[in-house]
Amino acid sequence: MAVEELPESKCDVLVIGAGPAGLMLAAWMARCGINARVVDKRGTKIFSGQADGLQIRSLEIFDSFGFCDRAWKEANHMIEMCMWNPGEDGVIRRSDRVPDVPVGLSRFQQIVLHQGRIERFFLDHIKKHSKDTLHVERGVLPETLEIDDRSVDDHAPDSYPITVKLRHLADEEATPAQSNGSTVQDGLFRSNLAEDDTDDLIRKSRGKEGTAEIVRAKYMVGCDGAHSWTRRQLGFQLEGEPTDFIWGVLDIIPITDFPDIRMRCAVHSASSGSLMVIPRENKLVRLYIQLTEIKPDASGRADRSQITPEIIIKAAQKIIAPYKLTYEYCDWWTAYQIGQRVGTNFDHKSRVFLCGDAVHTHSPKAGQGMNVSMQDAYNLGWKLGLVVKGIAQPRILRTYQSERRRIAKDLIEFDHKFSRLFSGKPAKDVLDAEGVSMAEFKDAFLKGNMFASGLSVDYGASMLIAKEGDPTEQGDGTDVSSKIQIVGKQQLASNIKIGMRFPSVKVLNQSDARPWEFQEKLRSDGRFRLIVFAGNILSGSQKMRLDSFCDKLSSSAFLKSHLYKDIDILTCHSAKRTEVELLRDFPDILHPFNDRTGWDYDSVYVDDESYHEGYGDAYGNYGVDRKGGCVVITRPDQYVGFVGRLEGDGFADVEAYFKGVFV
Amino acid sequence: MAVEELPESKCDVLVIGAGPAGLMLAAWMARCGINARVVDKRGTKIFSGQADGLQIRSLEIFDSFGFCDRAWKEANHMIEMCMWNPGEDGVIRRSDRVPDVPVGLSRFQQIVLHQGRIERFFLDHIKKHSKDTLHVERGVLPETLEIDDRSVDDHAPDSYPITVKLRHLADEEATPAQSNGSTVQDGLFRSNLAEDDTDDLIRKSRGKEGTAEIVRAKYMVGCDGAHSWTRRQLGFQLEGEPTDFIWGVLDIIPITDFPDIRMRCAVHSASSGSLMVIPRENKLVRLYIQLTEIKPDASGRADRSQITPEIIIKAAQKIIAPYKLTYEYCDWWTAYQIGQRVGTNFDHKSRVFLCGDAVHTHSPKAGQGMNVSMQDAYNLGWKLGLVVKGIAQPRILRTYQSERRRIAKDLIEFDHKFSRLFSGKPAKDVLDAEGVSMAEFKDAFLKGNMFASGLSVDYGASMLIAKEGDPTEQGDGTDVSSKIQIVGKQQLASNIKIGMRFPSVKVLNQSDARPWEFQEKLRSDGRFRLIVFAGNILSGSQKMRLDSFCDKLSSSAFLKSHLYKDIDILTCHSAKRTEVELLRDFPDILHPFNDRTGWDYDSVYVDDESYHEGYGDAYGNYGVDRKGGCVVITRPDQYVGFVGRLEGDGFADVEAYFKGVFV
Repeated sequence: MAVEELPESKCDVLVIGAGPAGLMLAAWMARCGINARVVDKRGTKIFSGQADGLQIRSLEIFDSFGFCDRAWKEANHMIEMCMWNPGEDGVIRRSDRVPDVPVGLSRFQQIVLHQGRIERFFLDHIKKHSKDTLHVERGVLPETLEIDDRSVDDHAPDSYPITVKLRHLADEEATPAQSNGSTVQDGLFRSNLAEDDTDDLIRKSRGKEGTAEIVRAKYMVGCDGAHSWTRRQLGFQLEGEPTDFIWGVLDIIPITDFPDIRMRCAVHSASSGSLMVIPRENKLVRLYIQLTEIKPDASGRADRSQITPEIIIKAAQKIIAPYKLTYEYCDWWTAYQIGQRVGTNFDHKSRVFLCGDAVHTHSPKAGQGMNVSMQDAYNLGWKLGLVVKGIAQPRILRTYQSERRRIAKDLIEFDHKFSRLFSGKPAKDVLDAEGVSMAEFKDAFLKGNMFASGLSVDYGASMLIAKEGDPTEQGDGTDVSSKIQIVGKQQLASNIKIGMRFPSVKVLNQSDARPWEFQEKLRSDGRFRLIVFAGNILSGSQKMRLDSFCDKLSSSAFLKSHLYKDIDILTCHSAKRTEVELLRDFPDILHPFNDRTGWDYDSVYVDDESYHEGYGDAYGNYGVDRKGGCVVITRPDQYVGFVGRLEGDGFADVEAYFKGVFV
Repeated sequence: MAVEELPESKCDVLVIGAGPAGLMLAAWMARCGINARVVDKRGTKIFSGQADGLQIRSLEIFDSFGFCDRAWKEANHMIEMCMWNPGEDGVIRRSDRVPDVPVGLSRFQQIVLHQGRIERFFLDHIKKHSKDTLHVERGVLPETLEIDDRSVDDHAPDSYPITVKLRHLADEEATPAQSNGSTVQDGLFRSNLAEDDTDDLIRKSRGKEGTAEIVRAKYMVGCDGAHSWTRRQLGFQLEGEPTDFIWGVLDIIPITDFPDIRMRCAVHSASSGSLMVIPRENKLVRLYIQLTEIKPDASGRADRSQITPEIIIKAAQKIIAPYKLTYEYCDWWTAYQIGQRVGTNFDHKSRVFLCGDAVHTHSPKAGQGMNVSMQDAYNLGWKLGLVVKGIAQPRILRTYQSERRRIAKDLIEFDHKFSRLFSGKPAKDVLDAEGVSMAEFKDAFLKGNMFASGLSVDYGASMLIAKEGDPTEQGDGTDVSSKIQIVGKQQLASNIKIGMRFPSVKVLNQSDARPWEFQEKLRSDGRFRLIVFAGNILSGSQKMRLDSFCDKLSSSAFLKSHLYKDIDILTCHSAKRTEVELLRDFPDILHPFNDRTGWDYDSVYVDDESYHEGYGDAYGNYGVDRKGGCVVITRPDQYVGFVGRLEGDGFADVEAYFKGVFV
């Protein structure tokens, strides 16, 4: 059949791949109300195995969408990390216990839950927020990609420079045998299949099986994994090398006398390799097991076809001896060889983007893969949404590669260090320079924790991040400079770092005294937020400053068209809750009146003590002056774009920031 | 049609009515795996209005079923109660602020959410735990009830003494116009209808409309409201009187300058009556408004047909003046006259039971109705479940009336006092003996808070409650005595009161260091729990005591057949977590081994500090000796049945307790 004869349709954004990165992109599309399509070549979502670790920043993101509670409830919580090493007699013993994540870092800690459930939460969220119009189309394979070079730089609303031919697979094509893992069914055990997943077990026939179609799109995102079809069409490379380390993975219900089987453990044996224990939900434990007896061939690749669960458990038994370890139930297993690579490009002319494994591959053991992949898409999705809707300037799309390729490089560097320490033989003594010192391992683990939490991400200067320095140097080299680079006043909010995510502290709603994590109010709804730290409004001079700022805000013609629709306003003051009143003491613009629903009671908060949940000390923890306050701008992804003054040039900077972003 | 010609079927338990009480009963039926039917004459569940307050004990119960998180997330949280009273000039002003529930009472506080959502949570829970076999049959009306007096006292498994004729209503009969309320539809506002409720809007046709059938049942429960058909068939009465106070209720999105509209408020006006403000979810506020201008007629009843929302809002405007109050959106409204009545009987020969409004009616303003009704059914459901399954002796069913009729009487007494203080005119000054003193009102509110939380319930001695005193006197007069009344040793756990619900404190799982509210481990799964406070097991003598107790437990032929199946075992010790190990230090019976899933890691807990959630000090807070410990038995509804020693007669008492309960 010639291309011209195929049915043709248009969409604004075409997403290839519906793993965690593709679903995160789709979630933004649903939240922003974008005409998007999401296709995946597999016939169903996954139901076991794959990724499992959820770091703190991912949980904050889930919370901003409103479904963190589901993950928190179902997951296993990892509290303590135990390190096991050989003693002088060569027998392993516990040498250390440390908290799995640093104490006091966040209201969340690291949890573990298999990828299939996370996909479920996204699918439910997308269904709800798209009003059941955005579905993952499964068993759909992209076959050709053409990009019209004439219109690619033209971000006009009617420009569809991308043409993709999609083929709808027949059922048997859509459910290929997995090459690197298999699900073991066993009716005697509680199945991993949750009841709300049952529907997805059966691929829904749409009557299109075996047909092809042409889709014209404004933008396209490849979330199609390490072997990304999209990346190959664009001719982009992954740079880096495989290593000699080969690992097996078992998801089992262990039968063992090893005392720390429900703790996260790093076990270094004297000469049989290393093992990592990751306790999971539903009595499962994931074991990462170094397969020291399987060697790569001359090409540097190991023959994985010879690896079986029996070989993997035997390797584990050697490492964990003298403790016993067997299993009756295996939920999933696989084997892999670590390859640490980063994509050369994340972006083709701000029209086609790559997210997740398509642009970075590394060891799974630090639990980073799914998280960094989702966070790629979380960074890109709102930018695409705002540009498609004609709200934001297309040039903000350049910040995607600048911000995320830099993170990917940091990730590979972290993984390189961590996996070497983890895969290496333990040093016999202090003179053993070849071996890995256990003190060094512990130290690396503790330092790596901050990185692994996802909270250390610090985006460089750009039109979206008003801070000092060279935008090109602070990113991956992409030019993301502004004509006029605004620079925020970091010292006004010393712990609300420009470029980092807005941290959370407990505050109270002024109107009903209910405590909230302030970050919970920064929902992922596609809006920027102007956060007014109003200070002590019982002081006459401070009240004048606040009123003056709000007057300017009310009378700005540019901002007026964006207020509440594209820019939400939140206020946090530092006077005593019971000494001020919403209607009497706060300018209307901070709690707007609606003819049919009255005053808004959800926008003004106070830094005061709660009855039941302690005192957040927001001003103290944020490093904001209690009297004078300040203003903060956060992007739709909760990253801090600007910090400035209520008085003086503060308002002009706020206006200039948004003029640099909006059309 | 003659009765003989109708289709006939059998079930173990027939539940009449699917409001909160009926659904709670059904939840137990699902959890216990009972062959039950639940019928309701209405065509659909409710979608707005009705009850809304959820007290702490109800939330603990929801948590024990596993769905408290849904209510907690959707509900409005009530934090502060504000009292408004006339000043000397007759103008209302805020005289007091108090926390809505006492600080430190529970991990929960009082929340507000409309009854329809609570019904949704129950329906989902019943579906899940009955594997979709137990459904509420809507539009089904009971028409006749016959009880076979020959077999009523015979609790043999094949005895079905109850015969009920059910009629399946035609569609138009099943959706009658409501006499005391109406839902106002308004597309401009967010509908109260949550997406997961949509299915229930349409009554499912089962092809039985207009037909009748005969059901033979072993047991029957009437949860059919204040006008209970079941109660009338049994000829039981409600005792008590209506009052002169007539109230209107509005669920509106208020447009107002009243500063405390998002607080719970009691407003006493000088001479226009009283008003209560209950802030709700989705911007709604419920107002209870005294209608002083509408008087009862000679019969003591008011003509409610003359009452409209316009009349109610006008009354509210007078009370709340000089503040303005209007609305554009009304979600629901009604009017009622307080009647305070208690049923003479809750139980007919331990075969037919009455729950909820069928046996107690009172003012809605203290937010007690739905809670006490659900708690009736929560008390009854597991007893019925265990008796139907042949596990427990039928005589435990007598404790239902003994325990719950006593509570109903306490409730009416509380309501009588509270509604008099609330409906009465405020005293002009200290010499005004007719008026209500605002100091007295505040005092009554604070004292009533403990009762209103639902946590003060203290069941009397019976075969289920091993405490001192006269079982007849401590209940409602029903004989619930045992042949040998065991008496627990309260002093061994001074804050785990025999007869009251097991309180919650944070403990850590010994195996993975995760903090849990200990009460969360007392799931509503139909099992009793033996809670072993093992004390400091690092002490040799204490370890011997523990081992000796566990040896007796393992070798008891009577208990062996019930262990884990009907009696779960939980352990909490007081040694340092890191100094003990599950497999090495604890008898196997406390963490049993399974051939296919290995050791149980979810039964042994420790009173130690957590990394991220503080220190629960379980032994200190429970009043248990850190060295010597004790044992506690809780019933399937979390009420404490027994406290005793690990050593001496402790085990014999434990065995005797269960011999008094199980068949």
